[in-house]
Amino acid sequence: MAAAAAGRAIIPQSTRRLRPRDGARSERKTVDYDFQQIDAIINARSLAVVGASNSPTKFGYMFTRSQVTMGFDGPLYLVNSNEDEIMGRPAYPDLLSLPSAPDLVYLTIPAHRSVEVLADCAKIGVKAVIMMASGFKEAGESGKRLEEEALAIAREGGFRMIGPNCFGIYNPRNRLTLLPGHDFSKSAGSVAFISQSGGYSAHVARQGKSLGIDFSAVISYGNAADLDESDFLEYFTDDPDTRMISAYIEGVRDGARFARVLQRAAAAKPVVLWKVGAGESSRRAVLSHTGSLAGSAELWDSLIKKSGAIEASGVDELLDIMLVLKHFGRSPGKRLLICGGGGGLGTYGADLAEKEGLLVPDLDVRALERLQEVLDHAGAVAGNPLDVGAPLIPMPFLEDTLFEAGANPTTDILLFDLAVNFGYDVAGDFGIERTVELLGETRRRSGTHVAAVLYSRSFDPDDMRFETMLRRMRKRLHAAGVPVFESMERAVRAISRVN
Amino acid sequence: MAAAAAGRAIIPQSTRRLRPRDGARSERKTVDYDFQQIDAIINARSLAVVGASNSPTKFGYMFTRSQVTMGFDGPLYLVNSNEDEIMGRPAYPDLLSLPSAPDLVYLTIPAHRSVEVLADCAKIGVKAVIMMASGFKEAGESGKRLEEEALAIAREGGFRMIGPNCFGIYNPRNRLTLLPGHDFSKSAGSVAFISQSGGYSAHVARQGKSLGIDFSAVISYGNAADLDESDFLEYFTDDPDTRMISAYIEGVRDGARFARVLQRAAAAKPVVLWKVGAGESSRRAVLSHTGSLAGSAELWDSLIKKSGAIEASGVDELLDIMLVLKHFGRSPGKRLLICGGGGGLGTYGADLAEKEGLLVPDLDVRALERLQEVLDHAGAVAGNPLDVGAPLIPMPFLEDTLFEAGANPTTDILLFDLAVNFGYDVAGDFGIERTVELLGETRRRSGTHVAAVLYSRSFDPDDMRFETMLRRMRKRLHAAGVPVFESMERAVRAISRVN
Repeated sequence: MAAAAAGRAIIPQSTRRLRPRDGARSERKTVDYDFQQIDAIINARSLAVVGASNSPTKFGYMFTRSQVTMGFDGPLYLVNSNEDEIMGRPAYPDLLSLPSAPDLVYLTIPAHRSVEVLADCAKIGVKAVIMMASGFKEAGESGKRLEEEALAIAREGGFRMIGPNCFGIYNPRNRLTLLPGHDFSKSAGSVAFISQSGGYSAHVARQGKSLGIDFSAVISYGNAADLDESDFLEYFTDDPDTRMISAYIEGVRDGARFARVLQRAAAAKPVVLWKVGAGESSRRAVLSHTGSLAGSAELWDSLIKKSGAIEASGVDELLDIMLVLKHFGRSPGKRLLICGGGGGLGTYGADLAEKEGLLVPDLDVRALERLQEVLDHAGAVAGNPLDVGAPLIPMPFLEDTLFEAGANPTTDILLFDLAVNFGYDVAGDFGIERTVELLGETRRRSGTHVAAVLYSRSFDPDDMRFETMLRRMRKRLHAAGVPVFESMERAVRAISRVN
Repeated sequence: MAAAAAGRAIIPQSTRRLRPRDGARSERKTVDYDFQQIDAIINARSLAVVGASNSPTKFGYMFTRSQVTMGFDGPLYLVNSNEDEIMGRPAYPDLLSLPSAPDLVYLTIPAHRSVEVLADCAKIGVKAVIMMASGFKEAGESGKRLEEEALAIAREGGFRMIGPNCFGIYNPRNRLTLLPGHDFSKSAGSVAFISQSGGYSAHVARQGKSLGIDFSAVISYGNAADLDESDFLEYFTDDPDTRMISAYIEGVRDGARFARVLQRAAAAKPVVLWKVGAGESSRRAVLSHTGSLAGSAELWDSLIKKSGAIEASGVDELLDIMLVLKHFGRSPGKRLLICGGGGGLGTYGADLAEKEGLLVPDLDVRALERLQEVLDHAGAVAGNPLDVGAPLIPMPFLEDTLFEAGANPTTDILLFDLAVNFGYDVAGDFGIERTVELLGETRRRSGTHVAAVLYSRSFDPDDMRFETMLRRMRKRLHAAGVPVFESMERAVRAISRVN
C-alpha cells in the first residue's frame, strides 16, 4: 500500500497501447490491458453526452443533471437534435457539430441508435465511448449480434468501450459523474468500486459518502463488451490514488486472467469482492441482466480465498467492510472487548463474535483488577463482555472504565454498543455527546481500535429528533477514527471478514 | 389461534392457586403455574414505585417518568422518604403510609434495601413485587444468598416476585410501563415479548411501535428468582389477548418443564425464540448477567425445532420475523417473485433467497406472456426476478406489471425493492408515492402477499428530507398490509424463518 501511495509516477512497465488487429470482429482478447489508455478515459478531460434531455423522467435528464450539478472539470457538450438548449446550455445536433472532439462520449440513447452513433465517434476520433443502453447481449441472439457489431466499430475506430447496459464512471477527481442522482460526494478519496450493476454503483457511491468513504472512482461496466472487470481491476491495482478496491461481479469474461489479476490486486491492496449468482435462479438472473455466466460457486469461493481478497455477501456487508478497512486496515486482530450499558447486548455480542470466528478473551489480570475497582457498583460487570452497569453512569467512572479497557493488552478492538439504551435524552455529563467524545479519546490515548454500534431507533416520520442526533454522533465518531455500525451483528460480521 | 382470539373467557382449567409450603425456603418448584395470579399482576389495578426520584440520572426517575407519562390506569403511589413531592405528585415516606395496599410494588432501590422493604410488602398484603436491583444471584455467593432470602420472604408473605435484576412489565392495556423511556405505544396489541434482558425489552417495545407492532405485554424478568420464563410462556399461551409470543432467553430454570411449555405454546400460536449463550464467552456473559446456565446449543436447537417455534438469531431478525408474522402469518409460502427497477437487486435477491431455502420459481407461462407484452421495452426483464427496467417507468406500465405479477399463480410473496434506486425525487405519476399506493392495491386485488424493501439512504444529519419521506412511505405500506424491511437480506431471512 505504501508503494501505491507514493505518487502518480508509478506506471506499470508491462502496459501496451491498443493495437487493433485488421478486420478484427468481437475478438476482444487481442486488446491488451493498457494502464494509460484506461487512465485517460477515467480522467477524461472533455465529455459529450448524447441523448441529454430536459425531460425529468429520462435517463438522459438524470445523467445530464448529475454531470451539470457536479461540475465536470472540462468541456461538457450536450447533444440532442430535438433541443436547442438543455439545462441552460447549448444543445448540439450531433457529434460532428461539436467544436472539438471530446475524450469521452456518453450515449444515453436506445441500443440501435447507440450503434449508429458509433460511426460518428470513430469519425471525430474519441478515446472512448460509454454505452448506457440495454438490449444487447443480455437480451438474446439479436442483441448479441448488435453488441458484436458495436465492438467491431470500436476496434476499427480505435476507441475503447464501457458497457453497454451500464451507468458509467463517477470520478470525483475530475468530477466525471455518469451516475443518476446529483448528491454524490465532491471529495476525491482512495476507494475504487467496480460494479457490473448500475443500481449498486449509484447506491454504494451514495452510501459511501454518508459513511465518510471517499472514492478514487466508481465504474459501472454492465455487459463488458470491451473493457471488463479484469481491465479495471488491473487499472486500480496500478493506480496510485487507489488504496482499496471493491467490486460487485456477476460473471467474468476470462476466468484464468481474472484469477491472475485478482491475485496481483489482493497482494497490492485490500480487495473486497461481492460475487453474486451462486444459485440456479440467480444464475438465470445474471444471464438476463448482463448476459454473463456466473460460474460455479465452489470455484469462486476457492478463487477468492486463494487470492487473499475479502468476500462480502451483500451490499450492506460490502459497505461495512469498507468502513472497517478504512479505519482499521487489513487484519486488525480478532480479540474483541465488547462493552456497553447492559448485560444483554454483551451476551449477544459475544454470541455473534464466536459464531463469526472472533475471540472474546478474558481481560488481563491487572486490567481486570483496575476495572473492578472502577466499576464497583451493582449491575456493572468488570470482564469481557464489560457491562458498565447502566447507560447513565457518571462520566468520571465511564472515563476511567474506557481508558482502562482501551489499555487492556488482550484487546485488539474495543466494540462499544451505544445503542440498545436510553441515555440519549440526557445532556451534559451523563449524555451521549460526552460518551462519543470519550470513545475518540480512548482510541487516541490507547492506540487500540475502537468501534461503535448505533441502532436507528423510532421510525416515526414525526420524530426525527433522535435520528438527527444519531447522525451527528455518527459523523463525530467517524471523524475521530471510530467506525459506526448499524447493529452489533453488522459490526461483528465486518470485523470478522477483514481478519 | 382462532380459539385464542375468541375472547377473555377462556381460562385454563388446570390452573391452581398459590399454595406456599410451610417453611419453604427458595424451593420455587412447589409453586405451580397459576394463570389468574399472573394475570392479576400483569393487569395490576394499583401500583407503588419505591425509589421514585426527581433526579434525572436515576433509574427511579426514568421509570417513574415512563409511568407518569404513560398514565397508569389506577392509583399510582410514589414512595421516597427523602422527597415530599415527585413530578408534581405527593411522595410517601414508605409503603406502610399508603392509603391502600397496591396490587403491585415496584422496587427501584439497591439490592439490600429491596430485601428489607419486602417485609413491608408482606405486611400490607400485596399481590406481587418487581425487584429491579442487580447484585443478586448473578453477582456471586453473597448475592445468591440475598436472592434466596428475598424469595423466602415472598413465599412467607404470600406474594409473587418478578426479577430481581430486571426492568419490569409494559402493558398498554392498563398502561403499566415499567421500562425506561417515555415514548412507548399506548395502543394495546396482540404480541407478547418475554425478555431476560432489560435493555432488549425496552428496545423491542420501542422498535415494535415504529413498525406498527403492538403488544399485549412486554415482560423483563431478569434472574427469575420466582416467576420465570416458563410461567410467562404458559400465561401468554393461555392469554386470549396474545396471538404471538416472542422471547429473549439466556437460560431456563427447569429444562424439562420449559420443553413441555414451549411445545404447548407453539402448538397454540406462533412463538419466536431468540436464545443466546451458544459459545464459551457468551455462556460466561449469561452467568454474570442473570446468573443463568445457558445450556448446550445443540440441545436448544433440537428443542426449538421439535417444538415448532421459530428461532431468531438476533434482535433485528426477531423484529423482522414479528413483522412478517403480523402481516403474513405462519408459513405464508416459500415462492418469491422478486421485483424492482434494476437487474442487480433481483440477482442479489435471488442469491439470498436460495441461500435461505426459499424459491424463485419461473413464472406461469400465461403470466409470463402477459408480462412480456406489458414490459416490452429495453432494460426490462419479464421473468423472476422481474426487472421493470428503470425505476422511472410510466405508472400505467408499472400498474399493469404489478397486477399481472400479483396474479401469477406460482407466487406466494411478491417482494418489491423500492430501495437501490433513485426515483424518490420525482413526484406524481413517476414517483415513489404512487408506487407505494400500487403495492397496496396489488395486495388487495390479488390476495398475494406483498413485501417491500426500503433502504435508509444518506446518513447526513443535514439531509433529513429523504429519511422523512422514507418513513412516511413505510408507514403507508404497513397500513396497507405490506411489511417493509430495511434490506433485501433482512426481508429474505425473515420470510425464510416463518416458513
